[in-house]
Amino acid sequence: MDAVKIIEVKQSVFANNDQRAQLLRSELKRRGIFLLNLMSSPGSGKTTTLARTVELLKDEMKIGVMEADIDSDVDARAMAEAGVKAIQLHTGGMCHLDADMTRQGLDELTDGDVELAILENVGNLVSPAEFDTGAVKNAAILSVPEGHDKPLKYPLMFRVCDVVLINKIDVAPYFDFDMEKCREYIRMRNPEAEVIPICARTGEGVEQWANWLREQVAAWRA
Amino acid sequence: MDAVKIIEVKQSVFANNDQRAQLLRSELKRRGIFLLNLMSSPGSGKTTTLARTVELLKDEMKIGVMEADIDSDVDARAMAEAGVKAIQLHTGGMCHLDADMTRQGLDELTDGDVELAILENVGNLVSPAEFDTGAVKNAAILSVPEGHDKPLKYPLMFRVCDVVLINKIDVAPYFDFDMEKCREYIRMRNPEAEVIPICARTGEGVEQWANWLREQVAAWRA
Repeated sequence: MDAVKIIEVKQSVFANNDQRAQLLRSELKRRGIFLLNLMSSPGSGKTTTLARTVELLKDEMKIGVMEADIDSDVDARAMAEAGVKAIQLHTGGMCHLDADMTRQGLDELTDGDVELAILENVGNLVSPAEFDTGAVKNAAILSVPEGHDKPLKYPLMFRVCDVVLINKIDVAPYFDFDMEKCREYIRMRNPEAEVIPICARTGEGVEQWANWLREQVAAWRA
Repeated sequence: MDAVKIIEVKQSVFANNDQRAQLLRSELKRRGIFLLNLMSSPGSGKTTTLARTVELLKDEMKIGVMEADIDSDVDARAMAEAGVKAIQLHTGGMCHLDADMTRQGLDELTDGDVELAILENVGNLVSPAEFDTGAVKNAAILSVPEGHDKPLKYPLMFRVCDVVLINKIDVAPYFDFDMEKCREYIRMRNPEAEVIPICARTGEGVEQWANWLREQVAAWRA
């Protein structure tokens, strides 16, 4: 396997991240690139979910993945093994990505042919939600072992998300996780958010998630 | 139950957090207060672990708990129900506490009689590790469902920790979690760190953790 490309992304010198993000989104629209920003706690299953997603979609559309991390390249290696173009973004200790950091990654990832670009954000439920990356849609993963109360404790994350994947539903019998309460708490934060229960390890529910993504990409590129 | 006190803590205006933290630690030494900084991802079981810890130690020493959170007071309520003095710190969106934020909380918590003060930091594996809170010792919780690779991906968190609690060991049979690899990865980051497997829900291993804490408090107050 080729060595994974590692990019050291630098925080923006521009004060207005929202404007930079809007500018990036306009460019993505013009170039026909759908950018998904995927966020979650550490260990919620972002990389496993992405590997499953790529498996289902890679023959239909050109996919590129940016793995943001503090200091390793294990996720980008996993994605490259899943068969898509993958680069690793090192954030120099920052626990989020802003729009210009995302752009630096995209410039390396897209040589004109990527239709679906996915940013796996730093594992964190706080700061990534505060910075618009320029993505077309935001997705969050909440895994069953983390508990159904997370939308109460991390309100902004759930407010900014277009879709919430509830992962690791296979272990639900071993945890006090109340799916109905979880849906209710997510609705409190964001009545528009789609909620899709999945198990990335076994593949359960991933087809529904892939369908959601297919529709979003098609609508954006229409 | 009395209403929980909520303190809005403000980020320090001082540039040198390390000095401020050192100053706070000297004061704690003088006043005989042991401050533990407890860090983890969201949903790793900080609050449940603390409730167990308090149950074991509250008749031996005066304990006060500071719950740092973005926007709720559910954790402080849980701690007050566990029978200790508890206050809630709201960080105004910040995903860490610095030494002066910690001091603002301590000023409200300690009216001269607390021997063990515990700071439950914001649920996050990145920024809390970057800011010395002034605590005497740092503890991290890593829960089995998060995976044994976390010390590879969040190096600083494990480097700054004096003790790592591996929580939710009761569900280990349902996850691909390799305890030996986990210990090895923690040692890579920090050969000095104590590693204690626990299950906060059932209480397994919590006595060993309480013993570690008893020794640390006694040594600090000696």
